[in-house]
Amino acid sequence: MKEYFIQNAKAFVGETVTLKGWAYNVRKSGKIWFLLLRDGTGIMQCVVTSFDADEASFALKDEITLESSVLVTGVVKAEPRSPGGYEMLAHKLELVAIAEEYPISKKDHGIDYLMDNRHLWLRSKRQNAIIRIRHTIIKAIRDFFDARDFTLVDTPIFQKAATEGVATLFATEYFGEKAYLAQTGQLYGEAGAAAFGKIYCFGPTFRAEKSKTRRHLTEFWMVEPEMAFYDLDMNMDLAEEFVTYIVAQVLEHRRPELETLERDTSKLEAIQVPFPRISYTEGVKILQKNGVDFKWGDDFGGGDETIISSQFDRPVMVHRYPAAIKAFYMKRDPENDKQVMALDMLAPEGYGEIIGGSQREDDIEKLISRIKDDGATEEDYSWYLDLRRYGSFPHSGFGLGVERVVTWICGLKHIRETIPFPRTISRLNP
Amino acid sequence: MKEYFIQNAKAFVGETVTLKGWAYNVRKSGKIWFLLLRDGTGIMQCVVTSFDADEASFALKDEITLESSVLVTGVVKAEPRSPGGYEMLAHKLELVAIAEEYPISKKDHGIDYLMDNRHLWLRSKRQNAIIRIRHTIIKAIRDFFDARDFTLVDTPIFQKAATEGVATLFATEYFGEKAYLAQTGQLYGEAGAAAFGKIYCFGPTFRAEKSKTRRHLTEFWMVEPEMAFYDLDMNMDLAEEFVTYIVAQVLEHRRPELETLERDTSKLEAIQVPFPRISYTEGVKILQKNGVDFKWGDDFGGGDETIISSQFDRPVMVHRYPAAIKAFYMKRDPENDKQVMALDMLAPEGYGEIIGGSQREDDIEKLISRIKDDGATEEDYSWYLDLRRYGSFPHSGFGLGVERVVTWICGLKHIRETIPFPRTISRLNP
Repeated sequence: MKEYFIQNAKAFVGETVTLKGWAYNVRKSGKIWFLLLRDGTGIMQCVVTSFDADEASFALKDEITLESSVLVTGVVKAEPRSPGGYEMLAHKLELVAIAEEYPISKKDHGIDYLMDNRHLWLRSKRQNAIIRIRHTIIKAIRDFFDARDFTLVDTPIFQKAATEGVATLFATEYFGEKAYLAQTGQLYGEAGAAAFGKIYCFGPTFRAEKSKTRRHLTEFWMVEPEMAFYDLDMNMDLAEEFVTYIVAQVLEHRRPELETLERDTSKLEAIQVPFPRISYTEGVKILQKNGVDFKWGDDFGGGDETIISSQFDRPVMVHRYPAAIKAFYMKRDPENDKQVMALDMLAPEGYGEIIGGSQREDDIEKLISRIKDDGATEEDYSWYLDLRRYGSFPHSGFGLGVERVVTWICGLKHIRETIPFPRTISRLNP
Repeated sequence: MKEYFIQNAKAFVGETVTLKGWAYNVRKSGKIWFLLLRDGTGIMQCVVTSFDADEASFALKDEITLESSVLVTGVVKAEPRSPGGYEMLAHKLELVAIAEEYPISKKDHGIDYLMDNRHLWLRSKRQNAIIRIRHTIIKAIRDFFDARDFTLVDTPIFQKAATEGVATLFATEYFGEKAYLAQTGQLYGEAGAAAFGKIYCFGPTFRAEKSKTRRHLTEFWMVEPEMAFYDLDMNMDLAEEFVTYIVAQVLEHRRPELETLERDTSKLEAIQVPFPRISYTEGVKILQKNGVDFKWGDDFGGGDETIISSQFDRPVMVHRYPAAIKAFYMKRDPENDKQVMALDMLAPEGYGEIIGGSQREDDIEKLISRIKDDGATEEDYSWYLDLRRYGSFPHSGFGLGVERVVTWICGLKHIRETIPFPRTISRLNP
């Protein structure tokens, strides 16, 4: 069975086809009326005249309401003046179901109202564009790794231990035990790298962030590659190639959507390797030069990140952070014991951190000492330490937060529009 | 930087390259020794002689232990007698880290022991093969939908309502509210279909199954397509095309892995459209003909499914089930009010249900009546009912459980080997 979708209109110009969708807008003008038909892949202007359409179809103009479902049969032709570049001369309209008065109108609604109606708001042109760009970003992520000898290793959501801090954990009863929802798949990813060489995991992760910010969701998707025999430099090489590929795929496949969002694409076209690489210490100097009262050893805040990233027209990679502000599993810098071989990538235009990663500690003694510093025991990380007991190996990896990347590439003000049904501290429904 | 992986050996025959991996096996024979090197993508036999290798490298034979990490430089040549068809004449070996005595040996370990060491067990040839087939299945799933005008709509894990029964819910505290972990993304997928036409969601889902069976995990991955303007027949057309595509992709890309698993591939080659389609009522007759004491209205158990599916050499689709044993959102059969337009697909060889789906109820009055029959209220499903208020539309979809498909395609006895870190009623670690 052949299907016709508006996004493929170019392929069926001149054919008589049936499009299936919803009334996005209706405009009447005497003996002719125009139906903007939305089918989820695009919008088609359907021209309905009493000459070309049958009587019942033409008469629908007085009945059809916004978001009513309808089948429209007609001939498609190129029409540069129409939205999307095509229009349909309608022969027949079949109303599937009339819609009650649609709660979302052209007028400004408050964000809470729109979020309460997220299931309907997704039908709007702008939200449609964002989610389709999200799709392309996710496809680019998987294609990138699939084409480079990575194996997909899905890591568990239910975990027994906390990796990124107990303050932000979601817990659930698990047959008499306590299970925590994954904040990261990394430790499991390291086991995967020992078994498969280069791996990635990609799934939802959870952090009970109590802060209400433009950059945080409680449920967000993260991709985490982990590579055996990669050092920090190779990690950075991969990270910049990866982000460049994602941006290029969006530019190649989602120009109309970027236009809908009025995104300045010249900013995206600038995203080319190599990315600038600066050490944390150099980052501190940039802040101090810009008048920020910042001491070596402090962690960068959102404002600090913006100042650093605004020095560059593409993402900047900051490496070698103070050990004290980074996670226990990061490898000590062989040249400076106060530092770890960490890597953060900051997006341009003030969008903040999109990647966090590191080379991992492969020396079991140093690792155990870091674990004890954190107040944990060897026993807590028994299986993880096995990866150092049985053929320890240099390895590196990073995590990229999908919604942050969508926010940046789409040029959005707030992360809540980057996922179909966002979850925040005050939002669990719909 | 060029990388060399064993799975691509054909591409670098005759070249001097460095392979990075772990000692999978060592065999000594006087003036020559053989190292089976595992790099996660394959196994390469490295031939080490005192003539071709330097003295220190040759002497490693007395030091290297199983799973020690090592870099091996040498020339690769085709060698049909070697595992994988290639071997390397080693010039230089660099030991990265010596492994302690490896806890997994060739001898039979109990399943609990292997599961306790899952992080290491994944390194074995058999587990490696299964996870790589899993990767190909997941890639095939996404490629299939991406190539057919579907939009990826990730549905939320944190949900406010139960869709598939409260008995099997995992719950978590959510800032003073109760959140349930997704058992399905379907209701959200229906909102997605209204916004994007054809969508799929694909992520982990959770069911607190108290039963210990070969077919159940508490955490499993499910892909759920949902299509606007699809009726039950179109749903079945898509489902059979989809499963056929997945099997064909595995046959095309994972022959060596299927061989490792000793899978009878002739059984997989038989998976071609069209699949047989029988009604539930016909299924009941098959059972009765086979001497099963089964009444119309009962649900099929695992044994019943095996009897039905054993009549066919490919998956069978069973449609139109009694309404009373199926979920509230399924559309009533216009020709028999006792039935719903449900669809289950049963894999051959006794592997049971791999797909469950239906055409969805698009009549709001019938839907509300079913909701009330279940003891819920309109208010509980307020946003879901909006999908019928604002442009209701015929639509259908289904869910395919990834781990069940991996079990079937790999020909496994138990589902626990189909995911890197399985979660069952008694297994939360590692």
